[in-house]
Amino acid sequence: MLELNAALTGSADYLFCRIDEAVADYRAAHPLARLISLGIGDITQPLAPVAAAALRTAAAEMASPAGVRGYGPAGGYPFLQTALAHQYEGLSCPVLPDEITVTAGSKDALGGLFALFSPAVPVWVCDPVYPAYRDCALAAGHRVHTLPCRAENGFLPCPEEITEPGLIVLCTPNNPTGAVMTRAELQRWVDRALAGGSLLLVDTAYAAFVTDNSLPRSIYAVPEAHRCAIELGSFSKSDGFTGLRCGWVVVPEACGCAGAWRRWLGSHSNGISYPVQRAAEAALSPTGLRQRGRALGVYRRNAERMLDFFTRRSVPCTGGENAPYLWVRCPDGGDSWGWFRRLLEECGVICAPGAGFGAMGEGWLRFTAFGKNAATAEALRRMDRLF
Amino acid sequence: MLELNAALTGSADYLFCRIDEAVADYRAAHPLARLISLGIGDITQPLAPVAAAALRTAAAEMASPAGVRGYGPAGGYPFLQTALAHQYEGLSCPVLPDEITVTAGSKDALGGLFALFSPAVPVWVCDPVYPAYRDCALAAGHRVHTLPCRAENGFLPCPEEITEPGLIVLCTPNNPTGAVMTRAELQRWVDRALAGGSLLLVDTAYAAFVTDNSLPRSIYAVPEAHRCAIELGSFSKSDGFTGLRCGWVVVPEACGCAGAWRRWLGSHSNGISYPVQRAAEAALSPTGLRQRGRALGVYRRNAERMLDFFTRRSVPCTGGENAPYLWVRCPDGGDSWGWFRRLLEECGVICAPGAGFGAMGEGWLRFTAFGKNAATAEALRRMDRLF
Repeated sequence: MLELNAALTGSADYLFCRIDEAVADYRAAHPLARLISLGIGDITQPLAPVAAAALRTAAAEMASPAGVRGYGPAGGYPFLQTALAHQYEGLSCPVLPDEITVTAGSKDALGGLFALFSPAVPVWVCDPVYPAYRDCALAAGHRVHTLPCRAENGFLPCPEEITEPGLIVLCTPNNPTGAVMTRAELQRWVDRALAGGSLLLVDTAYAAFVTDNSLPRSIYAVPEAHRCAIELGSFSKSDGFTGLRCGWVVVPEACGCAGAWRRWLGSHSNGISYPVQRAAEAALSPTGLRQRGRALGVYRRNAERMLDFFTRRSVPCTGGENAPYLWVRCPDGGDSWGWFRRLLEECGVICAPGAGFGAMGEGWLRFTAFGKNAATAEALRRMDRLF
Repeated sequence: MLELNAALTGSADYLFCRIDEAVADYRAAHPLARLISLGIGDITQPLAPVAAAALRTAAAEMASPAGVRGYGPAGGYPFLQTALAHQYEGLSCPVLPDEITVTAGSKDALGGLFALFSPAVPVWVCDPVYPAYRDCALAAGHRVHTLPCRAENGFLPCPEEITEPGLIVLCTPNNPTGAVMTRAELQRWVDRALAGGSLLLVDTAYAAFVTDNSLPRSIYAVPEAHRCAIELGSFSKSDGFTGLRCGWVVVPEACGCAGAWRRWLGSHSNGISYPVQRAAEAALSPTGLRQRGRALGVYRRNAERMLDFFTRRSVPCTGGENAPYLWVRCPDGGDSWGWFRRLLEECGVICAPGAGFGAMGEGWLRFTAFGKNAATAEALRRMDRLF
């Protein structure tokens, strides 16, 4: 037998698979239980009508002799790159269309981004962290260092803890904590990266949840960020694309790895599904942005309600403002898998145990705002006596 | 600046990018030239109506409150895994639905497959070879050994040349040579892999072009292949999916890396676009298979015509039967980039120079059968005086 990649052997499982298994076991034992999931961050609102219409039009086009669409550009169609560049322009964060690569989503792009660097380059991730960053970095052969994010610091990592240049993964608004970095905080990270020769990899998958206009929606709101930052974006949560699969990555020419990225793409990708790119383009149209607002409204209402629920009970928590996640302290100093099970068994509510996001997540639970309004309200009623 | 992956730096470019650049230069200088591409293997026939209809239905479903589709299973939807397993059953090559992972296409799956193994494991590729195998293996940190494929051996690699266990990449029907392995030849490879502790990675992207029923369409036609072979399949060429992006990979439980593959998928993928999977399911339906036959008929007619053209002129060539590629010797012992330019400049015909596929490809040209019938016939007329 050939020697396997050591990072892919052993027993550790992807957090959400473990949650799925626990839920499946519970369901098997309690087939009539009506469970409510506030666990995985998946959408519950339908795809915007304008995106669905674009999908249908593209399908008809591809089936017509004059509309044949073969391999698309590895980096994405110019129509979508341009629409995304226009969105960045609206944020006063100029990015060139050519610097934008259309991807099948952030998770799908991570393998390629980590492969750009020698395995000798360490990867810095927050703790707690979205597990895919860590797992993909390890699978690509990198050492992984962690940046502890503590309650006393608003769950934000500290640039001063970077002791070795590397690829630094940030996520704002944050998954799992819901913490959002201010412009000043992002500036500190850019300064640190430029001074120390590090690169930032910034995931902005939840930027559409930012309503406070003083908060940045992109790392490129910081001058000089183009020289030291790659940014990931996604249509998944803002536009209900979790099942459609589309996102993007910005690799600025000035950041030093754009050539390697083009080379990686050339050999590893034949581009993203044409109808999906048309749907994404439609999502960014004026009609699309109006329709996006409706779905976001549903999720924001959930976030507000949950935040109100926990703050009125004086349960320590963060997130829920400008972010679709709430990060909530387990009552009574309990452990997170214990409380995950208790909420599952006593309330039929599925959350994500903080320990699954890293050692610093122990004692915390993640709740998502992506449920339906009625179900989320019902989940809060069921949890009333436990918090 | 962080140290880049050495395999992604330097000046070597992806073959098809180099071809595109040469063609763009020529077009700029000769804006009125009517070029015919027999170069890149991209489809010219439209998507099957039944696949387009499935795309449209899925789009409407996703936009309805009852039809919300969020994250799909990382390995693909059971409906498509089952349809693919059924296709394997029809080939008398039983594969379990769970062993099939739906991908965005073969090229898109290579990064993950090479990442399953320690960089200490060498990768064996043919020469000539589809460049993405080699480039993806190098990007994942593997050493790459080559298996020379010579005219005197029908352009087939020899199992006896494997001097060190590793991951052995085979492609049948072959890209670029159009050579097809018999069952006996595949058997030799399975025997060699089992005896030496190697694994086979078999790309069957062109299996739909096999019309001779004595030729295997899958490595699993060989008993025991489940213990030593991973197989890649694709809807790209058979069903006009180059722009839609869908393929699959079979990782049998018995081959020893299914667990690592699941682990890789869990952290790197959120599955493939739902409407695309529905389109692929439709392509495998009885109606889909009938419609597939029409497009394949167009491409087969081209292959026959080209084969007839070269054989009547006694130009040494292979492929064109049971395969959509013809591998043709350059006249007068010329070099392949030279003849690529000559055909471009004197005939307005784009082919792929053999040297781009490896050192053993020097002196040969690849022609694809994926053009339109009339354009292919016209290309042959234009080349008449040169061959």
